[in-house]
Amino acid sequence: MQIDPDRMLADLDHLRTIGGQGTGVARRAFSDADVAARAWLAGRMRAAGLEVTVDACGNLFGLPPGDAPCLLVGSHSDTQPLGGWLDGAWGVACGLELARAAIAAGGPRIAVVSFQDEEGRWGRLTGSTVWTGLAPLSAMDPNPDGDGTEDITFAQARARVADIAPLGVVPPSRFIGFIEPHIEQGPVLDTAGEAVGVVEAIVGSRQWTMRLEGEANHAGTTPMALRRDALQGYIALAGAVNDAFADMVGPRTVWTLGRVVVEPNAPSIVPGAVGFTVQMRDPDAALLDALAARVLALAEGIAAARGLTLEATESMAVAPTALDPRLRAALAEAAEATAPGRWRTMPSGALHDASNVAHVLPSAMIFAPSIGGISHNPAEDTRREDLALALRTLGAAVTRISNAI
Amino acid sequence: MQIDPDRMLADLDHLRTIGGQGTGVARRAFSDADVAARAWLAGRMRAAGLEVTVDACGNLFGLPPGDAPCLLVGSHSDTQPLGGWLDGAWGVACGLELARAAIAAGGPRIAVVSFQDEEGRWGRLTGSTVWTGLAPLSAMDPNPDGDGTEDITFAQARARVADIAPLGVVPPSRFIGFIEPHIEQGPVLDTAGEAVGVVEAIVGSRQWTMRLEGEANHAGTTPMALRRDALQGYIALAGAVNDAFADMVGPRTVWTLGRVVVEPNAPSIVPGAVGFTVQMRDPDAALLDALAARVLALAEGIAAARGLTLEATESMAVAPTALDPRLRAALAEAAEATAPGRWRTMPSGALHDASNVAHVLPSAMIFAPSIGGISHNPAEDTRREDLALALRTLGAAVTRISNAI
Repeated sequence: MQIDPDRMLADLDHLRTIGGQGTGVARRAFSDADVAARAWLAGRMRAAGLEVTVDACGNLFGLPPGDAPCLLVGSHSDTQPLGGWLDGAWGVACGLELARAAIAAGGPRIAVVSFQDEEGRWGRLTGSTVWTGLAPLSAMDPNPDGDGTEDITFAQARARVADIAPLGVVPPSRFIGFIEPHIEQGPVLDTAGEAVGVVEAIVGSRQWTMRLEGEANHAGTTPMALRRDALQGYIALAGAVNDAFADMVGPRTVWTLGRVVVEPNAPSIVPGAVGFTVQMRDPDAALLDALAARVLALAEGIAAARGLTLEATESMAVAPTALDPRLRAALAEAAEATAPGRWRTMPSGALHDASNVAHVLPSAMIFAPSIGGISHNPAEDTRREDLALALRTLGAAVTRISNAI
Repeated sequence: MQIDPDRMLADLDHLRTIGGQGTGVARRAFSDADVAARAWLAGRMRAAGLEVTVDACGNLFGLPPGDAPCLLVGSHSDTQPLGGWLDGAWGVACGLELARAAIAAGGPRIAVVSFQDEEGRWGRLTGSTVWTGLAPLSAMDPNPDGDGTEDITFAQARARVADIAPLGVVPPSRFIGFIEPHIEQGPVLDTAGEAVGVVEAIVGSRQWTMRLEGEANHAGTTPMALRRDALQGYIALAGAVNDAFADMVGPRTVWTLGRVVVEPNAPSIVPGAVGFTVQMRDPDAALLDALAARVLALAEGIAAARGLTLEATESMAVAPTALDPRLRAALAEAAEATAPGRWRTMPSGALHDASNVAHVLPSAMIFAPSIGGISHNPAEDTRREDLALALRTLGAAVTRISNAI
């Protein structure tokens, strides 16, 4: 099986022209550019000898002829409102090249997919959520355009699949597993000068949305001892969380105080209330439970000690996704063979279609480095030699996996 | 000299009907209600035998007949857009009653004043600033209506003085000193169950407006070690300021972190920038200098250690105002005589007209308690017996001061 990185890069170069805006790409799910890109991909799949089907959700599949099980490789070709050229698209281009090279070589059996609306215009990971049965299509159909650019529902938008390819159903049972190549979207590989990441798990997330309420007072006439300062309560909590987490977290844990809204937020008024979020991510579900519980206990203690009232809502709880050990092992062996000493195992800190597909198929992911860790941005980029090297790693892994079946 | 607290309270009860809204008062400088209140006060002054003059700025004076020096007592009768019934008005009512009782008794020589626009519709302490020569009238004249309710300048608004009383000039040299009675506008006296505060100084203020800038990143894909989180820098600075100040501040110091604006302020994005204020108030100018310098040094150190950039602007610097030792001593003796064990010396945490007048005349202030510390609010209130008791304290002090001249 002769994979051709230049052919993959040429596909990717063409894809970025569809919806291209400067160095970025605007290819929102079911926009004209997205439909045109899927139609173009369908043509490339057919030219490679693949059988093309689009499902009712807009997920686009290119399948090798015949009914025998195959390995699915791909990602998504929709983008953020103005995203980068690689996010999702590189994974689809890799799947296309692997499937094409495999047909030319007479095996292994490889299929390619571009899932629809990974970026959440009409839902969240919409296409793979429906495909894996995690939610029925009828649950997505009433969703409005979250961007607010078109006054139509998902049901109306997905009528546009007719412009892409013949409509059909492609059940997960046709596949033996799923590999999603994706850019890292973070700085770890780039900072370390490494070329390949083998993803061990997609991290889970927990998030508290909290509000501390005290009493707003004149900042000149209210002595310190008579204040119930909500912002000082927040500052104490943030410090206590940092201190407590230092002894609790694992090497993969991240936590983020991302949002703070102070009331009334004036220089000469003691803050009366503060709303804020505390978000934690880790591959270990038990650790996430412990971290979330500790934050709540610290907040309750600080509120009580300072005469503040606390409201706490768990505003996000996503379980970690374990990836398949056999597929991971094959990717790790292939990485050591193709990029010796320049790869690592790592978690995915972002959600991906593989989070859904792992519920129904053995699944794995491979990362290429993101220059400066930048993504969801027109400046998103990866060196072309790194994109090519990761494709070679995938080719080596796919051969190993097929041999093992 | 027979002062009559009921007469003072009756004046105050009438005054609150002019611009009254529920329990509050809307009597903005040079509004119809403010002009009507000043005209009514002018009539009460004349009825008491005082000679009435309004100056070009709208400051209203009631003077005892004759050219001999006199003691000036008063405050202001304009309010916040919707303020309380006592802020300023009580001090004017006290001055009126003292001047009235003094004329009836044949001495001492007491004058009453209601300064204009203390609450800053057209400037800040506008009337007393011009009267004391701290700024010329020509500097105020171009000021627009800061409330945005009338499209006119201060020069146009102050033409309304013609409706109040005969226009004239009343130079500070006519007076031997100034006493400003005012409600505390804070919780200290009310919390302690005390009736009278003798103000030792009006605190000074220093304020930094700062901005820490790091780098916004995806909260899932950016490891803790690779973040330059501006909000974590702010949290560290706030904690360091609290720790450092614990060993530096005096018993009167207050400091306030009142305003925080995070960018982009989203739960899943590592904060890229934080703008905020750090405000300090104290009667001691040297201590304020030290506190302000320490905040800047801590911010510079934290910015450098965390790879953040710091912008720092001193956005407020008001020097403390020392009040006159002789007038303060007379008020303290009178407080001990009229409210034994139920008074204290204390700083004023808010600015007042006395801050300006102290530049040109020996000046002092006396506080009545504010229930719950509430002011600049329709709920502002003081027990009537406390308003009466503080007037008796003033009466006793005025007799002492006059005897000492």
